[in-house]
Amino acid sequence: MAATLEQNQDRFLSELLDWLRIPSVSADPKFHGDVLRAAEFLKARLEEVGLDNVELCPTAGNPIVYGEKIIDPSLPTVLVYGHYDVQPADPYELWTSPPFEPVIKDGKIYARGACDDKGQVYMHVKALEVMNQEGGLPCNIKVMIEGEEEIGSNNLGIFVRANKEKLAADVILISDTGMLANDVPSIEVGLRGLSYHEVEVTGPNRDLHSGLYGGAVPNPINVLCKMIASLHDENNHITIPAFYDNVAVLSAEERAELNRVPHSDDEFKQSIGLKDIYGEKDYTTVERIGIRPTLDVNGIWGGYTGEGAKTVIASKAFAKISMRLVPNQTSEEITALFQQHFESIAPAGVTVVVKPHHGGEPVVTPTDSVAYKAAADAMETTFGKRPIPTRGGGSIPIVAMFKSELGLDTVLLGFGLDSDAIHSPNEHYGVFNFLKGIETIPHFYRNYAAAMK
Amino acid sequence: MAATLEQNQDRFLSELLDWLRIPSVSADPKFHGDVLRAAEFLKARLEEVGLDNVELCPTAGNPIVYGEKIIDPSLPTVLVYGHYDVQPADPYELWTSPPFEPVIKDGKIYARGACDDKGQVYMHVKALEVMNQEGGLPCNIKVMIEGEEEIGSNNLGIFVRANKEKLAADVILISDTGMLANDVPSIEVGLRGLSYHEVEVTGPNRDLHSGLYGGAVPNPINVLCKMIASLHDENNHITIPAFYDNVAVLSAEERAELNRVPHSDDEFKQSIGLKDIYGEKDYTTVERIGIRPTLDVNGIWGGYTGEGAKTVIASKAFAKISMRLVPNQTSEEITALFQQHFESIAPAGVTVVVKPHHGGEPVVTPTDSVAYKAAADAMETTFGKRPIPTRGGGSIPIVAMFKSELGLDTVLLGFGLDSDAIHSPNEHYGVFNFLKGIETIPHFYRNYAAAMK
Repeated sequence: MAATLEQNQDRFLSELLDWLRIPSVSADPKFHGDVLRAAEFLKARLEEVGLDNVELCPTAGNPIVYGEKIIDPSLPTVLVYGHYDVQPADPYELWTSPPFEPVIKDGKIYARGACDDKGQVYMHVKALEVMNQEGGLPCNIKVMIEGEEEIGSNNLGIFVRANKEKLAADVILISDTGMLANDVPSIEVGLRGLSYHEVEVTGPNRDLHSGLYGGAVPNPINVLCKMIASLHDENNHITIPAFYDNVAVLSAEERAELNRVPHSDDEFKQSIGLKDIYGEKDYTTVERIGIRPTLDVNGIWGGYTGEGAKTVIASKAFAKISMRLVPNQTSEEITALFQQHFESIAPAGVTVVVKPHHGGEPVVTPTDSVAYKAAADAMETTFGKRPIPTRGGGSIPIVAMFKSELGLDTVLLGFGLDSDAIHSPNEHYGVFNFLKGIETIPHFYRNYAAAMK
Repeated sequence: MAATLEQNQDRFLSELLDWLRIPSVSADPKFHGDVLRAAEFLKARLEEVGLDNVELCPTAGNPIVYGEKIIDPSLPTVLVYGHYDVQPADPYELWTSPPFEPVIKDGKIYARGACDDKGQVYMHVKALEVMNQEGGLPCNIKVMIEGEEEIGSNNLGIFVRANKEKLAADVILISDTGMLANDVPSIEVGLRGLSYHEVEVTGPNRDLHSGLYGGAVPNPINVLCKMIASLHDENNHITIPAFYDNVAVLSAEERAELNRVPHSDDEFKQSIGLKDIYGEKDYTTVERIGIRPTLDVNGIWGGYTGEGAKTVIASKAFAKISMRLVPNQTSEEITALFQQHFESIAPAGVTVVVKPHHGGEPVVTPTDSVAYKAAADAMETTFGKRPIPTRGGGSIPIVAMFKSELGLDTVLLGFGLDSDAIHSPNEHYGVFNFLKGIETIPHFYRNYAAAMK
């Protein structure tokens, strides 16, 4: 580990914990003030590490934190993207320590946002500090950290379109993904897109007594279950017409290459307590997550959910349903197909409303670019092993947007692990991963600047 | 209207409102003190109208309020049953006035329990007062009002078995049902039973990120929907094996008789805002409610149900599922069939737990008995029309228990309406119905005592 990092690691961690104490939950209006506090905190830290023109750029939603260091306009420029907002933390009761009172336990930082994405953003802030102490920056760096990633990045595209000159760069660098294991470094090169909806089914116009009415009215919960059940066939294939039309079909060779990553179905099952492997017929677990689209219900509610028994037929039932998309599906296409299909399968007598929430595009990043090689070389230096290119299942919708709006490719230099429980209770991030990120990132800049000369 | 009733109707109503202010919700432990207060209130009122030996009989749960007036052991005895506990009132936000702050609006009393069953029980209390003022009781009367009807009457059977002598009577009289309309009096002669369950489906052992895991793990919400959907076929027939084995099949004549009640599908649809009629194929709406068993989901929950979007795969999903039973199904039989079937259809990889809540037996009461005729004559006197015998859909599980334990038939002299929204927000009870009940009940006693001479 570089000397600067070694000498300052306790302070770096302590600063991150301060940031994690701010509950910057973008999905819930009651945390709006905290979201702004988290942005101000980051602005101050970026100023401390010497960036120029640091500002909170206003948007129709939460501000974007921006800063830059142009050391020489003739040198290449890297634009770092990340987000300072976090997922909601409920159910709170399942956390072993409160989500916004970070603790370090068994070498891991436990807090909402520890990995996704405050911990990974903060590696970049501290990598700047380390480079300042150890010879300065080797190229120009711009930093753009948004506050609405967990709710669909609705205002980022508007900001990017309006600020193309300000954001001009040669490549995008993002740390918001994971790697296979601490001793199996990897870099994500494929990401799934997203189409997210809230659906509402209405039967009778008021809650009814199930004894007086049961059997003669459409129960919206039963109907919703039937509609959701019909979205998959017996092979776990999605039944929405035309859903698979644009799915990129990989060659046998490409599939074989993909399945070469270290993966054990037994370990996978054990890690999440499953009795059996599950998914679309004729695909492996790695393929089901990496190259196949999916449909999952993320939440469902309706009727009486309290203690004891209530013999009610609810007037309404609700669900949140999302689809993960793969190349070359688009979020717009799938959103329209879902909405149309879901409304079309409503049985007579009920009313169905589909409200699209937000979407994101699937993307595959190149592995033959200067930037990818700079990242792979950086990881090889600090991990002692060449990283494996992988196709992950998550979505970073803005990667496709950066490509279309700014014409830039992205490198996904992420240091998280699947076991970090992001979006779940007890999210955590390894102290090892946090420090390894700060160590690796300067190598990326040096490799990239050298190769672009 | 009898003079005593006319002169005292404002006070009678005001006393009922006082009782309705006590939130005697038996399903929720936090209302336990209020449940006891409601019992004490009733005890005091029964003492005021001259019953002897009024007491709160302790049970393993809520006390049973008992009182009696034996005017002559050689005269017949009527045992009045009812309940002072009420359904939970949530969702509170859908009430136009608070559920436990009763108001009279447009001739209706709005409050939780206004009809089910405090309002109907209180008619009996005030009928006693009216009879005291107008010539005295014509027969012996015993009153037994329990506090656990809405949670399955678990302790009533134990109490009845232990007090057969104390409860010895000739017939049971209950006002806890409805009639067709204020100008179409009717008496229920058939009631459906109940089998109520809570089910829990567990997939992965913790909440997961739908991007990192979606497609490769069984989502417990999708699985629960699929399991629930499979419980009905395309004709809305229930698919649980052997479910219909003991269902009494009515003759064409009996079905024709049943369908002679005044019923309009158009009015039915309009009254609850349905676009279309719905239910089991080859049965009319009246039959679907009166003589056919059903399966309804009364509540469902799992995953993220807050504001905005969260891309989570939940670890667990839950539902409350109940079945309405008809002669000659038994709650024990159906509870076992449901539990066995629901566990058997769990797909590989998930864990399913079925927890039976409570049950009740279906029942048909005779229409050729002295007591039924006394009730029909009483209604004819006060309504000016002969009441129609109907088969309702609700459950009063204790009717079957009274038959088996005490050997007594029941008369269901109810004055509610389907539109009273019992078990729903804005439950109400017509002032007309409350007063008409108080007017009708004394005629029943007089008719019954005269016929039994």
